[in-house]
Amino acid sequence: MASPEEQLSITPGTFHSLDRFSNAWYDRGAPCWKEILWRVVSYLWFEGRMPLPSAWRVFWLRVFGARVGDHVVIRAKVTITMPWRLTLGDHVWIGEEVFILSLGEVSIGSHSVISQRAFLCCGSHDYRSTDFKLLQRPIRIGQQAWIAAQAFVGEGVQIGDGTVVTAGSVVTHDIPAGVIVRGNPAVVVKPRPRANS
Amino acid sequence: MASPEEQLSITPGTFHSLDRFSNAWYDRGAPCWKEILWRVVSYLWFEGRMPLPSAWRVFWLRVFGARVGDHVVIRAKVTITMPWRLTLGDHVWIGEEVFILSLGEVSIGSHSVISQRAFLCCGSHDYRSTDFKLLQRPIRIGQQAWIAAQAFVGEGVQIGDGTVVTAGSVVTHDIPAGVIVRGNPAVVVKPRPRANS
Amino acid sequence: MASPEEQLSITPGTFHSLDRFSNAWYDRGAPCWKEILWRVVSYLWFEGRMPLPSAWRVFWLRVFGARVGDHVVIRAKVTITMPWRLTLGDHVWIGEEVFILSLGEVSIGSHSVISQRAFLCCGSHDYRSTDFKLLQRPIRIGQQAWIAAQAFVGEGVQIGDGTVVTAGSVVTHDIPAGVIVRGNPAVVVKPRPRANS
Repeated sequence: MASPEEQLSITPGTFHSLDRFSNAWYDRGAPCWKEILWRVVSYLWFEGRMPLPSAWRVFWLRVFGARVGDHVVIRAKVTITMPWRLTLGDHVWIGEEVFILSLGEVSIGSHSVISQRAFLCCGSHDYRSTDFKLLQRPIRIGQQAWIAAQAFVGEGVQIGDGTVVTAGSVVTHDIPAGVIVRGNPAVVVKPRPRANS
Repeated sequence: MASPEEQLSITPGTFHSLDRFSNAWYDRGAPCWKEILWRVVSYLWFEGRMPLPSAWRVFWLRVFGARVGDHVVIRAKVTITMPWRLTLGDHVWIGEEVFILSLGEVSIGSHSVISQRAFLCCGSHDYRSTDFKLLQRPIRIGQQAWIAAQAFVGEGVQIGDGTVVTAGSVVTHDIPAGVIVRGNPAVVVKPRPRANS
Repeated sequence: MASPEEQLSITPGTFHSLDRFSNAWYDRGAPCWKEILWRVVSYLWFEGRMPLPSAWRVFWLRVFGARVGDHVVIRAKVTITMPWRLTLGDHVWIGEEVFILSLGEVSIGSHSVISQRAFLCCGSHDYRSTDFKLLQRPIRIGQQAWIAAQAFVGEGVQIGDGTVVTAGSVVTHDIPAGVIVRGNPAVVVKPRPRANS
């Protein structure tokens, strides 16, 4: 294969040019001092590997504007970019090494689980624009859903109630309720059985 | 697409209800004080990014009940949930950022390699149960196998001797010996050549 | 399924034997003291979760021999194995939790972006050799390319100008310029539109 450099004659902006990038239009949803304080709190009590009571982490999420239900579990080594864009129902579990890039609103319904190393990524870029425009649509995860370990959920994705995104799956489109998805790209493999108890 | 909330009329337990979850039946395999001490040791000398001699880490794994062979290499930023459920043969290598969620027994045969960012995940949940029952079957990896970088190996999986799970592959079913697997979901792509020297 | 142990009669070296492994032939490109000092710098100002100005990180990359252009952004929690094997153009962005295992040369063209949790992995092993020989061919990423979040780019891969490796994709073969790739294994799904502005 010819080297990439030999294949195209490009100039800045043929595809995109990062010196045209600007997120000045983007409403960060919080004043600068609040972002800085959150960074400190995140550094001390979220991203670190110290086991701490979930109640302590939930307390700080609420202080910074997250809507958080009852009986929420948040493990160590969790990154949440902007807690003021986070809504968690009751009985939500967030596992170790979960990354929630909440540049857009992230809502997770009651009884839903985000397992270890999963990545909810609300940020993207418009690769059709020469300024590599920031995209940041919401991620909405229904109730009784399960985003299993190391799964990736992309910007703007809605996951229906009860749906299971199996481990390592990569989801970049909406997924209806009550199904099991698998793979990269993730596809629906079967309906999820409902309890009859 | 309609919002997930509009698609289904569900109540807690239609799929599962986390307030019914209990792991009281689960034998953690160690008293509480041992788990807490392990957390401290893991914090200080395993999960951190400080380069340390493998012999130091192997020493502590053995203190906490792991069966560990000779000439084992364990890099920095490694997470091992329960070392008393870990068995490593001789000449085993564990790379940086490897996550071994050893809620079940994890055994890795001699001369096998677990590369950077790989995830051996012995924990899962029964999504057919309304109590989201914890599953934790063993992971068994044969000898002379290679779990390459960023690969995922799920609960209950057995990987045969000499088999290569290529980088980024997601394995949730047993894989026979002597093959190369690739993809998500991972499939066997060819046999692995054997040395004739 | 029979247990892996029952399937094959193997001895050390049937596939490989790690006690035959040697990287004594491998030119690390720097004296030992330089590697140790880099580990300290990486520990303090790269791998940690402290937000720091990119200029500070770029300064240290250059001190350790990296060729780095102007207006480069490097976020926190970034791992770079050997900075003396790294070349970055102008306006390159490196996101949080990016892992650049630069055992071979890594070059990233101007206006290219490596997003959060992506892994550029220049190291591999020859699984056909009984000594599990280290492989470490260069990774070369063109200009105006985008390696999106959680994507994996393997040893020896060349990515053409303007190409987008979408989130979570696993790339182990060369990718031409000006395309979008997706999946595991990644395949070309369409050309990337060029700007006409």
